[in-house]
Amino acid sequence: MTLSVALVGSTGYTGLEVARLLSNHPSARLQIATARSDAGKHITEVHPSLTGRVDLTLKEFDANEIAQSCDVAMCCLPHGASAETVKELIEAGVRVIDFSADFRLSSVEVYESWYKVKHPWPQRVGDTVYGMPEFFADAISGADVVANPGCYPTSAIMPLAPLIRERLIDPHDIIVDSKSGVSGAGRSAKVATLYCETNESIAAYAVGSHRHQPEIEDLVGRITSQPIQVVFTPHLTPMSRGILSTIYARPAEHGSTDRVEQIMQCWRDTFADSHFVNPVEHLPATGHVAGTNYVQMAARGSGDRLVLLCAIDNLAKGASGAAIQNMNVMFGIDPTTGLR
Amino acid sequence: MTLSVALVGSTGYTGLEVARLLSNHPSARLQIATARSDAGKHITEVHPSLTGRVDLTLKEFDANEIAQSCDVAMCCLPHGASAETVKELIEAGVRVIDFSADFRLSSVEVYESWYKVKHPWPQRVGDTVYGMPEFFADAISGADVVANPGCYPTSAIMPLAPLIRERLIDPHDIIVDSKSGVSGAGRSAKVATLYCETNESIAAYAVGSHRHQPEIEDLVGRITSQPIQVVFTPHLTPMSRGILSTIYARPAEHGSTDRVEQIMQCWRDTFADSHFVNPVEHLPATGHVAGTNYVQMAARGSGDRLVLLCAIDNLAKGASGAAIQNMNVMFGIDPTTGLR
Amino acid sequence: MTLSVALVGSTGYTGLEVARLLSNHPSARLQIATARSDAGKHITEVHPSLTGRVDLTLKEFDANEIAQSCDVAMCCLPHGASAETVKELIEAGVRVIDFSADFRLSSVEVYESWYKVKHPWPQRVGDTVYGMPEFFADAISGADVVANPGCYPTSAIMPLAPLIRERLIDPHDIIVDSKSGVSGAGRSAKVATLYCETNESIAAYAVGSHRHQPEIEDLVGRITSQPIQVVFTPHLTPMSRGILSTIYARPAEHGSTDRVEQIMQCWRDTFADSHFVNPVEHLPATGHVAGTNYVQMAARGSGDRLVLLCAIDNLAKGASGAAIQNMNVMFGIDPTTGLR
Amino acid sequence: MTLSVALVGSTGYTGLEVARLLSNHPSARLQIATARSDAGKHITEVHPSLTGRVDLTLKEFDANEIAQSCDVAMCCLPHGASAETVKELIEAGVRVIDFSADFRLSSVEVYESWYKVKHPWPQRVGDTVYGMPEFFADAISGADVVANPGCYPTSAIMPLAPLIRERLIDPHDIIVDSKSGVSGAGRSAKVATLYCETNESIAAYAVGSHRHQPEIEDLVGRITSQPIQVVFTPHLTPMSRGILSTIYARPAEHGSTDRVEQIMQCWRDTFADSHFVNPVEHLPATGHVAGTNYVQMAARGSGDRLVLLCAIDNLAKGASGAAIQNMNVMFGIDPTTGLR
Repeated sequence: MTLSVALVGSTGYTGLEVARLLSNHPSARLQIATARSDAGKHITEVHPSLTGRVDLTLKEFDANEIAQSCDVAMCCLPHGASAETVKELIEAGVRVIDFSADFRLSSVEVYESWYKVKHPWPQRVGDTVYGMPEFFADAISGADVVANPGCYPTSAIMPLAPLIRERLIDPHDIIVDSKSGVSGAGRSAKVATLYCETNESIAAYAVGSHRHQPEIEDLVGRITSQPIQVVFTPHLTPMSRGILSTIYARPAEHGSTDRVEQIMQCWRDTFADSHFVNPVEHLPATGHVAGTNYVQMAARGSGDRLVLLCAIDNLAKGASGAAIQNMNVMFGIDPTTGLR
Repeated sequence: MTLSVALVGSTGYTGLEVARLLSNHPSARLQIATARSDAGKHITEVHPSLTGRVDLTLKEFDANEIAQSCDVAMCCLPHGASAETVKELIEAGVRVIDFSADFRLSSVEVYESWYKVKHPWPQRVGDTVYGMPEFFADAISGADVVANPGCYPTSAIMPLAPLIRERLIDPHDIIVDSKSGVSGAGRSAKVATLYCETNESIAAYAVGSHRHQPEIEDLVGRITSQPIQVVFTPHLTPMSRGILSTIYARPAEHGSTDRVEQIMQCWRDTFADSHFVNPVEHLPATGHVAGTNYVQMAARGSGDRLVLLCAIDNLAKGASGAAIQNMNVMFGIDPTTGLR
Repeated sequence: MTLSVALVGSTGYTGLEVARLLSNHPSARLQIATARSDAGKHITEVHPSLTGRVDLTLKEFDANEIAQSCDVAMCCLPHGASAETVKELIEAGVRVIDFSADFRLSSVEVYESWYKVKHPWPQRVGDTVYGMPEFFADAISGADVVANPGCYPTSAIMPLAPLIRERLIDPHDIIVDSKSGVSGAGRSAKVATLYCETNESIAAYAVGSHRHQPEIEDLVGRITSQPIQVVFTPHLTPMSRGILSTIYARPAEHGSTDRVEQIMQCWRDTFADSHFVNPVEHLPATGHVAGTNYVQMAARGSGDRLVLLCAIDNLAKGASGAAIQNMNVMFGIDPTTGLR
Repeated sequence: MTLSVALVGSTGYTGLEVARLLSNHPSARLQIATARSDAGKHITEVHPSLTGRVDLTLKEFDANEIAQSCDVAMCCLPHGASAETVKELIEAGVRVIDFSADFRLSSVEVYESWYKVKHPWPQRVGDTVYGMPEFFADAISGADVVANPGCYPTSAIMPLAPLIRERLIDPHDIIVDSKSGVSGAGRSAKVATLYCETNESIAAYAVGSHRHQPEIEDLVGRITSQPIQVVFTPHLTPMSRGILSTIYARPAEHGSTDRVEQIMQCWRDTFADSHFVNPVEHLPATGHVAGTNYVQMAARGSGDRLVLLCAIDNLAKGASGAAIQNMNVMFGIDPTTGLR
């Protein structure tokens, strides 16, 4: 069996990464790639790195055409716009992996207050599956639409959820200090992400107001059935890819003196069957996982705090790699196919 | 008057930065530059960027020769080795600015337990002046030896000390998450700081064990007369220069709802006469202060925390720029001379 | 005496560099800074790195206001638009240093065929002084308008002109392979110069069609009274600043076997009185001259060719540093003032 | 069938890339990985990025052990040392792909004069197959030892050889100006390749004296049966991976006015059956081929010259990717296996 995949919204970095990963996937192929203003161009005009690897002309979006020839659509559209497209695709009978935040949160109210838009399809909010197979594999396998996780949330939920579920850390005193490569800011022309603006410079942004904060809180809450609060600070880092989250937590009261080893053991147990998530003894660097779907996590003690470190590639495990992994799970393929 | 300066230990990045800054200083000139294995070479063989700017041959260290021709020595040597050289210079009658950590801490015991060496001149530990003119200008002006501050401590003490002195934040719940450029790791040949190891990758290091943690605690304690504890995590960031410290603090009990404005006002009051320290409304980036002696600081609220951000250039205000500023203060010159 | 300077077009990288250099210039100060869409903003809102260094609000352009309060205007505007503004300023009685290409070439026809615009003030084309004090200092000192050189041409004319004038190389077989940092592409929002597009990637652009080719040929011709042809290929290099030109030339027939030494001697003779131009024995790197007005040049033999290497900072000696140097010469100040 | 592979010399960047590529190869697996000083360590201690992907402990080299369990050995050792090891392996009955230069050249004399060592196995020099399947596939398929091409030569031979064979360009007037990422300099601890030395700086090195010059001349000569001379200048570029070669050639006398189209057609014909080599209309960037085995080539006219541009990844098609491709050819597997 070879899956036929539609890529809706092909011109950004996540679209490029989907196309790249599919070109190397033994049981899936990119069948249709859509774009708005670039429709009619060959995909290699927009992404020269696909030369020799993908031979497609970009098309206008047409849900029925996709329904006729594709098993699944990957939607790489901005929030708001995405939900409308997802609705069309679902109604046309296509299963969807949605890269936007439109179906990630449990609550329409929380969504609308953080994203400042009216949700176009509020009926589906809350009952959509969050595309993190490490925690929701069963639901993903049967889902019609999967909300692909945000990049920062991936790097925070993975290490935090198991520890809160096992009551190893205090759910009310958590600081997530994240460092992201510039591709996280997207591929639209903005002065702020010009080479000379971000090169040789690191800065925080959206302090106390980044939309991934409620996503972290919501999902850890769903996984652990415990409400949590996080202080979240993202930083723009002079590199193309990668996220490192440095997480400060207090041990829960019953934490023993072997807290770091307890944490590592909890992670090893949680992720025993997950090929991609690796608790490691060394301190993870984003360079260790660049271009891959792997996750590296480590723990250290520092004063009265536990310091948890989690490195991912923001475009792979933080976006397009996770989407491929979700697709594999949705269609009963080995989750690691095309991602090793 | 033109000051004659000796640079002891010329081959590293701080030595280069001293030579560069002095080449542009209207009232000081580099008279002697020493090096061990490179003695005999022209300084531009070691630092080609000084071509046309500095015309000196590197010499072996000789305290008496320095005493005869120089007003002040800048010591850029490793800890332990530095204290011995400083002692020789002081005894020969030369005033010294010491870049090492040997005279920064108040306690010989703390020094020896963190630095794992026997201190060669313990008598002077604790009564040496810390070279941060924003807090210790009077003492610096009369000092025979000034302990030039560490780079990370500069980025933490500057924002923290005023707020703790004014009891605006809790001194017992402080997290300092710092991101440094690679020049902070020095210029010796190590695999870990090769281009391909650090490029496109960010990682924490020395979590819970970095020697700048006791320096931050000691100095904030000295300035504020309050004991503090910090959790400190340094990160190696893919850029040559700069430090951004993201500091998480809890407001002290009497903190009003205008906490961020209170903090800004406290900083503005503290640094009103300091040309280099600028509280700013925007979020500081290391690129904003690269290559300069300036400090940018900002504050934001995030959940139940205050987030303080401080950007410096690790080689300038974090090392050689501070040393020039200290020299200016020691010799009664306008502190900004040669540093604007 | 303190010169009053107007900066016309303040929001780009060359404008920022002018403001930065003037903030450190002992005999000049930035009096007026203009911008179109950003008029009314404080200059530090557009350039946060000027915080604490420049305190000015950006204004609309007004030639008469500039004439009343300024000795000289630095025009950092796009070609075409620049010539009109220069005309207004000259007619209002202000001396001008023009960063555009509008007055660099000798011929209106060549200008119009390469720049695809009608020249707004063709009368002044050809009799305007080219702002390279190493060759035109006398003319610059008396000029009302100085055409500030292009960045690539600076890196090619400096090494080539002396050798062609002395007939050491063949003027008809010259290849200039140049590598520039991304700041050369300006500060406007374009996908092509986003961080992730240019980081970790080098590429040629405008092969055989870059507008700096006729500028190199025109100026070397003017300096040497010999027509020359160059093949010129610029490359976008993953760094913010700097140009390295690698130039391939054939020795002229009378070239002796000591050609490399002859070349070095020719350069040393030509630039004996120039503080900034340094023939060097080592192979120049752009990092050696980053952020400075210095030029490093070297020569090597390779097969039947001479390889000439020239490194400059594209924003300093290639633009704003050269402009400050020109200003110094125009007003009888030591050329190195504010640039060491 | 699954091939068993030995990696001899595992600690450098080419060794890492071999291990990475094999971890994703469907018909080969890494069986033995050797190292000298790191023998006994797990491979992920030396290369943390292999965590979860390769589970091997590094061993001392033992030719007989390799012969017993492996079908092929990849030798990533320095020149000189490599030839001795290759000899041992061949004599033990293992087929070898040698990454060093020891068997690339036709002449022992040329080798010894450029590499300044006595060749340890001169008998095999000259009759060894050069591992570029685009030109030598038949010989590779039967070879016991394949000399894996140098990185720069790959980027020069690919575009040049077809054009010289078809007499489209003059073989005696060729300039190759190459720009390489820093990984080309290897992973040993040297000041010259520290992050802060190479970041934000480009420079030429080994002008007129780089050992890849005779390799280019020798191989183009072998492929085309015409002697050629090249002027070759390598540059160290601030990026981890990638080579761009900008090649200046004169059209041969019979060159028509459609020279650029003729060149493109010649390349299309030559590489019609090669999956990896792509003549492209756009100007190739190293970022387009980073991390892949692809080659992009383009041509332009500029004055009296043709400018040929060729981009590869120095560690993939320039080293380890080519080795995997050679292995596939040696064992009758589809050449693109594990490399798409």
